[in-house]
Amino acid sequence: MPTKIIEPAEGAYPYPLLIKSLLLSGRRYAPQREIVHGSSRYNYQELNARICRLAHVLRAAGINEGDTVAVMDWDSHRYLEAYFAVPMIGAVLHHVNVRLSPDQVGYTMAHAQDSLVLVHDDFLPLIEALAPQLPSVHGYIQLSDAPVPGSTRLSPLGEYEALLAGADSTYDFPDFDENSVATTFYTTGTTGNPKGVYFSHRQLVLHTLSMTTTLAAYEGFALLRSEDVYMPMTPMFHVHAWGVPYAATMLGVKQVYPGRYDPDRLVRLFREEGVTFSHGVPTVLQMLLNCEEAAKTDLTGWKLLTGGAAPTESLVRQMAARGIEFFTGYGLSESCPLLSASFLEPGQHELPLEQQLEARMAAGIPVQLVDLHLIDAAGQRVPEDGASLGEIVVRAPWLTQGYYRDAQTGAQLWQGGWMHTGDVASITPGGMIQIRDRIKDVIKTGGEWVCSLRIENLISLHAAVAEVAVVGVPDARWGERPLALVVLAAGAELEPGALQQHLMQFVSQGQISKWAVPDDIRIVEAIPKTSVGKLDKKQIREQVRDA
Amino acid sequence: MPTKIIEPAEGAYPYPLLIKSLLLSGRRYAPQREIVHGSSRYNYQELNARICRLAHVLRAAGINEGDTVAVMDWDSHRYLEAYFAVPMIGAVLHHVNVRLSPDQVGYTMAHAQDSLVLVHDDFLPLIEALAPQLPSVHGYIQLSDAPVPGSTRLSPLGEYEALLAGADSTYDFPDFDENSVATTFYTTGTTGNPKGVYFSHRQLVLHTLSMTTTLAAYEGFALLRSEDVYMPMTPMFHVHAWGVPYAATMLGVKQVYPGRYDPDRLVRLFREEGVTFSHGVPTVLQMLLNCEEAAKTDLTGWKLLTGGAAPTESLVRQMAARGIEFFTGYGLSESCPLLSASFLEPGQHELPLEQQLEARMAAGIPVQLVDLHLIDAAGQRVPEDGASLGEIVVRAPWLTQGYYRDAQTGAQLWQGGWMHTGDVASITPGGMIQIRDRIKDVIKTGGEWVCSLRIENLISLHAAVAEVAVVGVPDARWGERPLALVVLAAGAELEPGALQQHLMQFVSQGQISKWAVPDDIRIVEAIPKTSVGKLDKKQIREQVRDA
Repeated sequence: MPTKIIEPAEGAYPYPLLIKSLLLSGRRYAPQREIVHGSSRYNYQELNARICRLAHVLRAAGINEGDTVAVMDWDSHRYLEAYFAVPMIGAVLHHVNVRLSPDQVGYTMAHAQDSLVLVHDDFLPLIEALAPQLPSVHGYIQLSDAPVPGSTRLSPLGEYEALLAGADSTYDFPDFDENSVATTFYTTGTTGNPKGVYFSHRQLVLHTLSMTTTLAAYEGFALLRSEDVYMPMTPMFHVHAWGVPYAATMLGVKQVYPGRYDPDRLVRLFREEGVTFSHGVPTVLQMLLNCEEAAKTDLTGWKLLTGGAAPTESLVRQMAARGIEFFTGYGLSESCPLLSASFLEPGQHELPLEQQLEARMAAGIPVQLVDLHLIDAAGQRVPEDGASLGEIVVRAPWLTQGYYRDAQTGAQLWQGGWMHTGDVASITPGGMIQIRDRIKDVIKTGGEWVCSLRIENLISLHAAVAEVAVVGVPDARWGERPLALVVLAAGAELEPGALQQHLMQFVSQGQISKWAVPDDIRIVEAIPKTSVGKLDKKQIREQVRDA
Repeated sequence: MPTKIIEPAEGAYPYPLLIKSLLLSGRRYAPQREIVHGSSRYNYQELNARICRLAHVLRAAGINEGDTVAVMDWDSHRYLEAYFAVPMIGAVLHHVNVRLSPDQVGYTMAHAQDSLVLVHDDFLPLIEALAPQLPSVHGYIQLSDAPVPGSTRLSPLGEYEALLAGADSTYDFPDFDENSVATTFYTTGTTGNPKGVYFSHRQLVLHTLSMTTTLAAYEGFALLRSEDVYMPMTPMFHVHAWGVPYAATMLGVKQVYPGRYDPDRLVRLFREEGVTFSHGVPTVLQMLLNCEEAAKTDLTGWKLLTGGAAPTESLVRQMAARGIEFFTGYGLSESCPLLSASFLEPGQHELPLEQQLEARMAAGIPVQLVDLHLIDAAGQRVPEDGASLGEIVVRAPWLTQGYYRDAQTGAQLWQGGWMHTGDVASITPGGMIQIRDRIKDVIKTGGEWVCSLRIENLISLHAAVAEVAVVGVPDARWGERPLALVVLAAGAELEPGALQQHLMQFVSQGQISKWAVPDDIRIVEAIPKTSVGKLDKKQIREQVRDA
């Protein structure tokens, strides 16, 4: 039998979920709150006016509905304006990952068919080199933090501030289909070209509503409420800066955009602007803790959400020692990204830190509307017993519906009607997700699965270890064997054998099997990282193979 | 130009916004939290199992997708289960307003074409009398709080608990169109028959997400967060109990359902169950404050949201004196209902109470995604200057799209593409809505508009006044003149002339015009109320006219 579908009366407004609606409430709640970037400082009323001005500038630059506008910028108020203005005129915002190799940047811009590029002075050399390969691009707008914009041979349409100054401060943003693409960006897998994910207005509005509830409603996870001050430390080009700029703007909190990430500047901004909430991948947080400015700053009360990779216990303890309130979230480029968060259980946040560590390091439990479980290699559900491993598959209202212009990998992503995260995890009977590894990084040795992250964690507990990566290398007898790269702490000295001995204590405690102890542990100067600061296991494997 | 619409890959799941999704997170966050009603007390895992059992019972009773199931119950765990199970099988939940006259109840049930009725013992006499006029009803399920269910000549399919006990505790709830009708209920206007409003799954999911953000994210309005304990005091049949049961369940908070509203029991439950958050119309809150149990209970810290009618200053002061944290929200049956809330401005909640009163009594500012403004009689926008009056018109993702089987009044509701609230208000330059009156209750006298609510408020400040209503009565010379009905406080004595004198002080202060002072002030024993406890101005006008 069919359900009864709601019947609209004549004139009834079928409210589409559009990004423009996210702007309504922040300005009403706190019209005088500030958006800060460098020497630029203005309030929510001005933010709204500037978004209107930018919309006019984009239209004047020939941008129509369905066109794609690329942004190449550090975290700035301009980027925030683009988060809104570009999709609000019906165009697609391409968040260019400027940390990819020049070839990959060029690939993504050509693949996304960018029409217009908003480009910061710092990326002029890059875009000048790429321009000949980008026939779809018909214009550039220059973004500059300097009094005199950098010189370029690109003939840009103008400098951003100058163009905005000449544009009208009101704009009648149109309604359109909520399933219109609002944003796109590229994710680099371990093989092949970067893949384009894309998110609709509807998806971003729903993600924002869920994000505000997630960050506000749980007493053990109270990261972003009306009186907080927000500063991202996950780049704005990376998965919508985890979606928080949209959430912060909807709520109407003060926002601080730090430009290029310089650890000392980040800490100064925290101190001087009264920042209370930031988020970043573990490597960025580690840089922060190690910087000069951090040594002379009281970091107490800074609420930090980490994700993108599991934090090591060592990092977590360092943060706790500095009085930082740290939490873990989980998501990926394909998921907009919010999937789960390390809410503490009721009452748990009143326990001594030691008893909170496990929960704070875990990926937590799925947030509202997220439906998620584990499957094994055969696609069968894996029990939630805290031990059994399986790949996380998920349904949520804000997952990419495929890869742009790549039907085949899109269908693989969605095999069986669930989105495959590529993450291997266990789930406790209490529902807590513990990410164990990327499915590609799991080391298959002697008939069992060894999680590289687990071994990395245990090695990182050794005082002489600053950084560590574990990968599987082909082995004729065992299929694969784990191999570790280790960067020593400053001034430390160590023989690989001492680390094997260190690991053997966990074997005798029954925490890991003896198969998990790497035969090959190499002391190195540095470990390859991806553009967003994660361990680059693909490159590590290549490097180890070639060595 | 068309926008670019997202393209789903093969297998991509187009996540519909369905009420079943609201159940995912509460159980994961706090599986052991309790749902309490009378002697019934169970946790979220059990709630989920019982919803599945109820779904089987409904299907076994012949309910298919698109059928309508009526509930006639006081606030209970059973009603909460129906909030989910009925729409989750694709049926429509008809919230029967049991406080309407029997004729009107019969009208609404026939008009809604109810198939099955879940009916509490207390309403057996009512439904037995109506049954012959309800050909669409083919079955009854009996709801009972007593050890032995009440006797009836209706031959019900069974008693609720007995039926649930015999049903399976898992159910594979289907997906369907998110625009399917989930709920319906009737609103009584000043003229004509009750009108049916209806809300889809999509609308209720969006309303819930906005509600959780609204109630959690604002430090000056922190009504419902993860550690709160919720008890409604707005009936569950009335506008989804303001939507809070869905929000509370999604969050996973403890919920207490108080049955029929007995003020002493409500206060006892507050004390014994650790209730922190409730909501109710001003008349219910007034009863609460006046009851015996309240006199011997420390009410400090009880967070009360009021709405449905503006609270009088007198009530607000009484609540403050008892240490109650009170706030005002605004919405109507047609709006699901959440439209705006009296968020205090940043910092304002730290001011002395006296300086918060105005903001706490106002309807506040619109919540996320709500777009709203004032129009005059000609449909033109009215300035937001805190003085100019206009009717509130609104767009939001959760407004009824019409009146059920009544295209004409639906089109009137949505005239010009905006939903007409029928409420006359001013909006301050800071965006704060101040409801002045129902457009039908505004008294047009001597060429100007006099707001009856304003006069009621000023009269209520007089110590001898317990309750007051002001209506317009036809007047040959002035068009209309205000007339006041006054119930005196217990033991008080007063001549009408003293109240006119009381009002003249506000005339000389310039707060009201002299036209606003009623010539006719009548001391009465009681003032007619609607089924939900509001002043029944329609009946008052009739009574005054007939007198």
